[in-house]
Amino acid sequence: MKKIIIIPFLMLLFWGCVTGHEADRVSLYHSGEKNDSLMIRKIYDYALSHGESYENLRYLCKSIGARLSGSSQAAKAIEWGKKVMEKMGCDTVFLQPVMVPHWVRGTIEEAAIVSDKKQIAEALDVCALGNSVGTKEKGIQAGVVMVNTFEELKSIGVEKIKGKIVFFNRPMDEKLISTFHAYGGCVNQRVGGASEAAQYGAVAVLVRSMTLHKDHFPHTGVLHYEDTLHKIPAAALSLNSAEALSRKLRLDPTLQVYLNLSCKMFPDVLSYNVVGEISGSKYKDKYIAVGGHLDSWDKGEGAHDDGAGVVQSMEVLRVFKAIGYKPRHSIRAVLFMNEENGARGATKYEEEAAKNQWFHLFAIESDAGGFTPRGFSIDGDSAVVGQVKAWKRWLTPYGLHELEKGGSGVDVDPLKKQGTVTIGYRPDSQRYFDHHHADSDVFEAVHQRELELGGASMAALVYLLDKYFDESPSKLPKPSL
Amino acid sequence: MKKIIIIPFLMLLFWGCVTGHEADRVSLYHSGEKNDSLMIRKIYDYALSHGESYENLRYLCKSIGARLSGSSQAAKAIEWGKKVMEKMGCDTVFLQPVMVPHWVRGTIEEAAIVSDKKQIAEALDVCALGNSVGTKEKGIQAGVVMVNTFEELKSIGVEKIKGKIVFFNRPMDEKLISTFHAYGGCVNQRVGGASEAAQYGAVAVLVRSMTLHKDHFPHTGVLHYEDTLHKIPAAALSLNSAEALSRKLRLDPTLQVYLNLSCKMFPDVLSYNVVGEISGSKYKDKYIAVGGHLDSWDKGEGAHDDGAGVVQSMEVLRVFKAIGYKPRHSIRAVLFMNEENGARGATKYEEEAAKNQWFHLFAIESDAGGFTPRGFSIDGDSAVVGQVKAWKRWLTPYGLHELEKGGSGVDVDPLKKQGTVTIGYRPDSQRYFDHHHADSDVFEAVHQRELELGGASMAALVYLLDKYFDESPSKLPKPSL
Repeated sequence: MKKIIIIPFLMLLFWGCVTGHEADRVSLYHSGEKNDSLMIRKIYDYALSHGESYENLRYLCKSIGARLSGSSQAAKAIEWGKKVMEKMGCDTVFLQPVMVPHWVRGTIEEAAIVSDKKQIAEALDVCALGNSVGTKEKGIQAGVVMVNTFEELKSIGVEKIKGKIVFFNRPMDEKLISTFHAYGGCVNQRVGGASEAAQYGAVAVLVRSMTLHKDHFPHTGVLHYEDTLHKIPAAALSLNSAEALSRKLRLDPTLQVYLNLSCKMFPDVLSYNVVGEISGSKYKDKYIAVGGHLDSWDKGEGAHDDGAGVVQSMEVLRVFKAIGYKPRHSIRAVLFMNEENGARGATKYEEEAAKNQWFHLFAIESDAGGFTPRGFSIDGDSAVVGQVKAWKRWLTPYGLHELEKGGSGVDVDPLKKQGTVTIGYRPDSQRYFDHHHADSDVFEAVHQRELELGGASMAALVYLLDKYFDESPSKLPKPSL
Repeated sequence: MKKIIIIPFLMLLFWGCVTGHEADRVSLYHSGEKNDSLMIRKIYDYALSHGESYENLRYLCKSIGARLSGSSQAAKAIEWGKKVMEKMGCDTVFLQPVMVPHWVRGTIEEAAIVSDKKQIAEALDVCALGNSVGTKEKGIQAGVVMVNTFEELKSIGVEKIKGKIVFFNRPMDEKLISTFHAYGGCVNQRVGGASEAAQYGAVAVLVRSMTLHKDHFPHTGVLHYEDTLHKIPAAALSLNSAEALSRKLRLDPTLQVYLNLSCKMFPDVLSYNVVGEISGSKYKDKYIAVGGHLDSWDKGEGAHDDGAGVVQSMEVLRVFKAIGYKPRHSIRAVLFMNEENGARGATKYEEEAAKNQWFHLFAIESDAGGFTPRGFSIDGDSAVVGQVKAWKRWLTPYGLHELEKGGSGVDVDPLKKQGTVTIGYRPDSQRYFDHHHADSDVFEAVHQRELELGGASMAALVYLLDKYFDESPSKLPKPSL
């Protein structure tokens, strides 16, 4: 029978726009590198066709939900994490006790209501910042001073600030390509704003949410009180409400805001890090760790922050088991507790590592969302960074182009004390702060393939580190690869 | 007053995980490259802080909507595109008449209902493929033969296929990193499946949707009938329905499917490409074009495919005007008509270019969605590809790492006849086929920053091409940059 010939313009439909990642096309048989490129291909193949991270994340988000340190959901997440890693056949799974802060948002509905001289009242989208004290039971009402910087606050001075609510409204810089840079450029308002304003006699603080997405979600996040200063309540406004309040203030600088927060800090409670391990075949007492944090804020479901990092870390172990890779070093997935408001789990893990002489060559953290892979940020000396860069030809086919010296993550950072090279997994940052610490950080905001590619990327890097380094990250493989 | 000292672990919260794109940190004053890096920075700054592509896309999607060639919405989109480019102060805006196919889905609700031997009926998510003929008015009912490949079809043979509905169920390969490669690996079922099955006497064709996303959206797309063969109706099933039908067939190979499609091809109608131009200061009769296609399928709103490419192309001109960049060559934004089911606009544009001696050095197409930038695919010789690669140091800070030889796009491809180097803009591909040709391709699926970064990336490349090339893409800049 007649063979069908597809006319040229139609051919273009399926081939014309094909390009991009090269992994699907490049020969896997580059001389001497065959085994590595095949093994990395195997890791991605398995993660993309038999991945469990997405369904694990669904359970963590939908059946457990938000899991602030000290909450009953955090306790459930610990049990769940332990069970999942036991079920996947880790050689060891254990809990590591740690005392954590226990802050609670409270049961009264949080409220911020602005009213102007015409007595027109409007409710603002608001939520208390983490660690904030509450207002008095009946709330507080006061005039508002809007500033963009601490310097501006200082120049306004105590006379005009005393008794007022300070409104920090400096936006994230939309011109920066990395949204983490934009975040870094204004998060001091959220972390330090309350104590800074308290110095001038402010009675409360409102902070523009740390996001670039114009919507009605307020974004919480940690604040830190200076011990020597009066603690005043602090809350975040959604971008819509920050813009509305800013407009209203320009029309009527005498307007008042009523604020009611019932949040409260309780005594520390017992919680746990969860640790799963595949024992090393050659260097059993030398570790490479991957991790994310199991706690989240109490808004949304902690999907990108950091459910993604948790399920990706567990997936590294599961993929190794499934494809039969037997690591030379012991590989650990660490689900850290309390990254969001204390980093107590991170501190505890490092203390235990020192005490038990668990030497970690490398520790990789995924805490920047479950988005499409971009690369890794390596907190090590230039020799190690150079070594990872030398692996580019194996990693760029999977979208991992950005292999640079830089910060890693809050949870793995303490391990630097023992000489560990810490590494941060870096997915694309564009959508992260749309969801970060807000009700919009839900399972549905995570894309299955993007999440799975992240876990596979971490596994691929662990594979290379495990294979080519021996007893120390400062002793480079020879001959250098 | 006391200066506030943020304790170290909190510092980590805002600086610990900062890295990624380098544009925000690298010095812009690299010797001899200052002007280029500053100009590219200026392009991105403006596009990210004063972008209009997102609001343009909102109008195109929400106020006009889906715009299949020959439809009244396509006519509205032409008027709109012309107006937008006139308003932004292009030196020339004109319409280019072109006759296009006029296929219509019809007004009767499309239906595919499977019923098994127990007489249990279930509706499948279905939509006609573009260009398909309809069924008889009362629909057709027949048994089903499921295959994965044309070879399988052949081996089953005419005896068992005659009078049946052929169900092509080969899935996209989820293991491929580029989803375009996965698409390329099975789209022949959709394009050629109907005529292939007609050879064996099939009465209709059902095709598994070209997507990796498990949901209830059927994805349409063009089919091509061989002129010498009987035209049989063809429709796509959602992934959920393809899986359901496949399961049912395994339990009951005798099941029947009822299919009713009222789609029909009408005579060609007059339509237009829309062309906007900034005249060149030095080479007025030499062009660099950017483009996307203005038509879309009649499902969803044609947001990623290809509203994104349309608004990004227009944005290139707008940004140049706004930042006061006066190009040496004439720069055109071309909104092509009829990419989806005929590529008549592309053919017409090339014909007009030949007739009017519009020599195009370069033509860049954006038709792979409005996602975060990854790079460009260059359909030129190795010297030109090498030149673009040499610009990496200016482009990688913006996430443009993948600068490779490869295909460009359906609309710019015909220009290769005149020696044009055609280029495809390549955003991240992971989410594209979730939306492609389906009701889920709506404005809300496009992320503002990702879209804006794409337009800026195209403008940055046009800037470099315009500055460093003179009268021909085959004459490389000297000294090579």
